[in-house]
Amino acid sequence: MERESVAPGACYFYYPRLVCVVGVRDEARGTVNFAPVAWASPLSSDPPLFGVCLSPSTHSHHLVLRTGEFTVNFLDRTQAELAQSLGRLSGRDVDKVAALGLLLEPPESLETPSLAVAYVSAECLLRERHHLGDQTLFVGEVQAVHARTGAFDHEGVLRTDVVSPLLYLGSGRYVTIDATTVTRLPVEAPA
Amino acid sequence: MERESVAPGACYFYYPRLVCVVGVRDEARGTVNFAPVAWASPLSSDPPLFGVCLSPSTHSHHLVLRTGEFTVNFLDRTQAELAQSLGRLSGRDVDKVAALGLLLEPPESLETPSLAVAYVSAECLLRERHHLGDQTLFVGEVQAVHARTGAFDHEGVLRTDVVSPLLYLGSGRYVTIDATTVTRLPVEAPA
Repeated sequence: MERESVAPGACYFYYPRLVCVVGVRDEARGTVNFAPVAWASPLSSDPPLFGVCLSPSTHSHHLVLRTGEFTVNFLDRTQAELAQSLGRLSGRDVDKVAALGLLLEPPESLETPSLAVAYVSAECLLRERHHLGDQTLFVGEVQAVHARTGAFDHEGVLRTDVVSPLLYLGSGRYVTIDATTVTRLPVEAPA
Repeated sequence: MERESVAPGACYFYYPRLVCVVGVRDEARGTVNFAPVAWASPLSSDPPLFGVCLSPSTHSHHLVLRTGEFTVNFLDRTQAELAQSLGRLSGRDVDKVAALGLLLEPPESLETPSLAVAYVSAECLLRERHHLGDQTLFVGEVQAVHARTGAFDHEGVLRTDVVSPLLYLGSGRYVTIDATTVTRLPVEAPA
């Protein structure tokens, strides 16, 4: 297969990725700010750590430093416009919850609500942060997970016949998975 | 929509994710070790940083510390069994390149080959590492990207009509995207 060189900054080689909406309390305004990121990853099993990248210029970045916690919320394919609107508006100017009529779900372990429309949300307690290039990686320890009933099977795997998760492709484009292509191979220990 | 609590360790809430095969030179054995990870993410645009999580118990972890570089290689949906085999074998015991008959592509900027079968690969120079829970996050600066000709469009977005990327769902299950669901929304600055 022929291959060609591409400039590192000119190719979204790392997409598609799940759209992850980060929720942070804005105590001064009495609301919760929600912003979509695609640069996010689990980082550890034990303890369960999950990391999200936020630019220091964002309102969310400022709020995470103040509250020391955040929620991560995952959307389905019907919510691409919501994700795009959450990215378009800035929490500095607008209460997105009011502007977009968002329903919140109260927290269970911490103090930050999650997005009720998400098929799954996790409450994260900020453990550390690392400045990496033009972003800050916020590392949260997962304290609680709330899932839409029936969204995950008894092994904790997403039920692709029930949920079509929203993935980002870059440059304003979104896609979901093809549930008919799920294949299962025997699980063994990683090398 | 009704939701329920799930134990943080019992739910793969963060899948599906792209399968990312990490390649590292094994100079002692004169080969390259390739191991699949799903916990990986871009971390910065400028400089372009990409991070991969590896357990300290793995051979790959040991090798990255020695060589100070790695490649990341992305597979398509037809290569689920290859991903699973790369995870099943350990580079401590087996030369996976020989055992699986892998074709390598020579590096362009660094010294670590990539996997010729991948639709896109990136060469990463190790910049820093962070011990996070039971994993180490290796942060590499992307030095070069090699893509299968025609795999990405002029905006650097994956051509979903050409490539069906391999995503991991957890528990040995793999899936790809549904190219018929791509939607495009106007791009604006993030909040």
